[in-house]
Amino acid sequence: MPQDDAFGWIDAHHERRLAAGLVRTLRPRSADAPLVDLAGNDYLGLTRHPEVTEAAAAAAREWGAGATGSRLVTGSTALHARLEAELAAFCGFEAALVFSSGYTANLAAVTALAGPAGGVDGALLVSDEGNHASLIDGCRLARAEKAIVPHADPDAVRKALAAHAGRALAVTDSVFSVDGDAAPLTALAAACREHGAALLVDDAHGLGVLGEGGRGAVHAAGLAGAPDVVATVTLSKSLGSQGGAVLGPARVIRHLVSNARTFIFDTGLAPAAAGAALAALAVLRREPQRAARVREIAAGLHGRFVAAGFEAVRPDAAVVSVRAPSPEAAVRWAADCREAGFAVGCFRPPSVPDGISRLRLTARADLSDAQVTAAADAIVRTAPAA
Amino acid sequence: MPQDDAFGWIDAHHERRLAAGLVRTLRPRSADAPLVDLAGNDYLGLTRHPEVTEAAAAAAREWGAGATGSRLVTGSTALHARLEAELAAFCGFEAALVFSSGYTANLAAVTALAGPAGGVDGALLVSDEGNHASLIDGCRLARAEKAIVPHADPDAVRKALAAHAGRALAVTDSVFSVDGDAAPLTALAAACREHGAALLVDDAHGLGVLGEGGRGAVHAAGLAGAPDVVATVTLSKSLGSQGGAVLGPARVIRHLVSNARTFIFDTGLAPAAAGAALAALAVLRREPQRAARVREIAAGLHGRFVAAGFEAVRPDAAVVSVRAPSPEAAVRWAADCREAGFAVGCFRPPSVPDGISRLRLTARADLSDAQVTAAADAIVRTAPAA
Ligand SMILES: Cc1ncc(COP(=O)(O)O)c(C=O)c1O
Ligand SMILES: Cc1ncc(COP(=O)(O)O)c(C=O)c1O
Repeated sequence: MPQDDAFGWIDAHHERRLAAGLVRTLRPRSADAPLVDLAGNDYLGLTRHPEVTEAAAAAAREWGAGATGSRLVTGSTALHARLEAELAAFCGFEAALVFSSGYTANLAAVTALAGPAGGVDGALLVSDEGNHASLIDGCRLARAEKAIVPHADPDAVRKALAAHAGRALAVTDSVFSVDGDAAPLTALAAACREHGAALLVDDAHGLGVLGEGGRGAVHAAGLAGAPDVVATVTLSKSLGSQGGAVLGPARVIRHLVSNARTFIFDTGLAPAAAGAALAALAVLRREPQRAARVREIAAGLHGRFVAAGFEAVRPDAAVVSVRAPSPEAAVRWAADCREAGFAVGCFRPPSVPDGISRLRLTARADLSDAQVTAAADAIVRTAPAA
Repeated sequence: MPQDDAFGWIDAHHERRLAAGLVRTLRPRSADAPLVDLAGNDYLGLTRHPEVTEAAAAAAREWGAGATGSRLVTGSTALHARLEAELAAFCGFEAALVFSSGYTANLAAVTALAGPAGGVDGALLVSDEGNHASLIDGCRLARAEKAIVPHADPDAVRKALAAHAGRALAVTDSVFSVDGDAAPLTALAAACREHGAALLVDDAHGLGVLGEGGRGAVHAAGLAGAPDVVATVTLSKSLGSQGGAVLGPARVIRHLVSNARTFIFDTGLAPAAAGAALAALAVLRREPQRAARVREIAAGLHGRFVAAGFEAVRPDAAVVSVRAPSPEAAVRWAADCREAGFAVGCFRPPSVPDGISRLRLTARADLSDAQVTAAADAIVRTAPAA
């Protein structure tokens, strides 16, 4: 068979995806892009904050550009330890463990807490159907029994747990990344406790936005530090950097160190990213009003969209999602906003769990009222006919 | 059930692992650690090179501390595009795609190239039993048929391919991370071509060390740029930074952009890490002798160990692996080396595929002859009785 045929199937697949309006292309931005950003996850406006970028630069100089190895070999520095202590203290947990991304933190938490482990059977995984891809991939990797439950439905979780005899772990986003709605954490925790199950909450979109001074959705629900609750966070959204962390009881963190494959077999987070996240945390502690400002902007955008007759979920955090009639319409709408000077997200299958395309907008603490108004005007003006 | 019991199983598991000598603890290093490092993967000695750390600092200042979103939303910058062009050109491939880690690059390549994709059946995955955890996790995630074949055995690959009718992908490390031995890439490619199968090579430990000027093992085998070959690399070893990349035909890269979950749903690599990797590539282009120096040091260490009667695999790249009689003996041996001033790696189950514990040493281009001799002396002197 000619060598050319080994990947020949890709071309046919590409043609079908093109026809369905589902092909994506990269659009690298320049350093001084003139667009107002309502698409990124830099919710607190910290990624270009001088204290944050200077901390990144200083960490690269002091510690080197890379961690040089797995956290278990040469990849743990005093900087990583400091970040872990600060994250745990800020969010109200006993201990924390830093990963190279939120994605690998989620893979670690799900697999190491639910998978079978020398002499211990795997847990039942009860997973919300709207969970982020990294939690879903964690469930796929865990080699455990799974129950996929309807979105944000504590009764469904309760039923799944009641039907199971051994240990169990319920898994949920705190704020769902596509529609920006919050999970019913209090009711989920109650359902878990009735059945002695553990609860894992991905607080990627809650940290920095929800809870007292941005301590996150788990803290806001009074669940931080509980012996049966584990949270994951990313350093790549509100903290403006890169990386992720698992927060939980000390014994859970100790267990991850010795057992989580994406911890053991991955190079440690780059010092610059750890240093930047530490600096961002310090700014957030000093300026807790940034969290409230994000929520205010999100609520304001949503109000404008509802008034304009859009189908938009009430935002519980920074993400505001507006439905579009088709993938093609969503792409055109996003392009028109771009043309008007506003970068907005466009979510299409397979990035959406339900096949419905959306514009996805994000609030940012450092947007002015005038910028928010101008953005809302442009989005309303360019909306496709319903 | 009391909340405390949800993670109670962890304590019992921990006791059993403790008794077996398999518990790991983190040992954060200080910025001015006095140890000579023979444990990290900074093979070319670039992670603290001033050009590399200054490039990290400059990128954080120019682009911000984080990428702010998925590469498909706001996370692609001109810096990422430049790094992709440079990596592809240096390694001899048509195109490249950068990820937040080598781990997520491997998950992407395996799942997107072997998994079922809208209308296309999954491929048979033929995977070497010694492959890195990230390739194994990719195989687990891919939802494809798998054949795990004996280590470095092209005939076994050929047999697995012959027994299969549809498309297939063979997956291998170029240099195996535990023992440092090289895969028989030429024979593997021949076996694949006989059956029209594609070949995916993880060149994490080959880039910077093997091939002309450190262009990697795939380039050395004359396979770079072939239409049926894909390589993955990390930016976290020879390039002294963090991140990973997939290199291959343009249509493969285009396919990953629209289909790889760890690309679509992960925040882009931090600008500081991209900038550092670009600078490291520039140093390597200017000083290609660094690659040869690493190999020379590895061969020298191996020679000393063989003369001392150790069981050590001949190193094909920078990794030199020496067997230890037990996990406990390996831990003690590594501690004694540390005591003598040398940081060495200690690999125990489950980080080794065969249950055999080892010291794992790594050569580094910037070690002096005197340092190498002193390290070898200390390792030989502290060896456990056979
Ligand atoms: C809910 C959620 N969890 C996890 C992640 C992954 O985090 P990271 O991008 O830092 O890897 C993301 C987004 O990227 C997310 O939206
Ligand atoms: C062979 C191999 N592939 C992939 C990886 C993962 O790369 P990274 O640590 O950059 O995520 C590693 C080591 O960490 C490795 O040794």
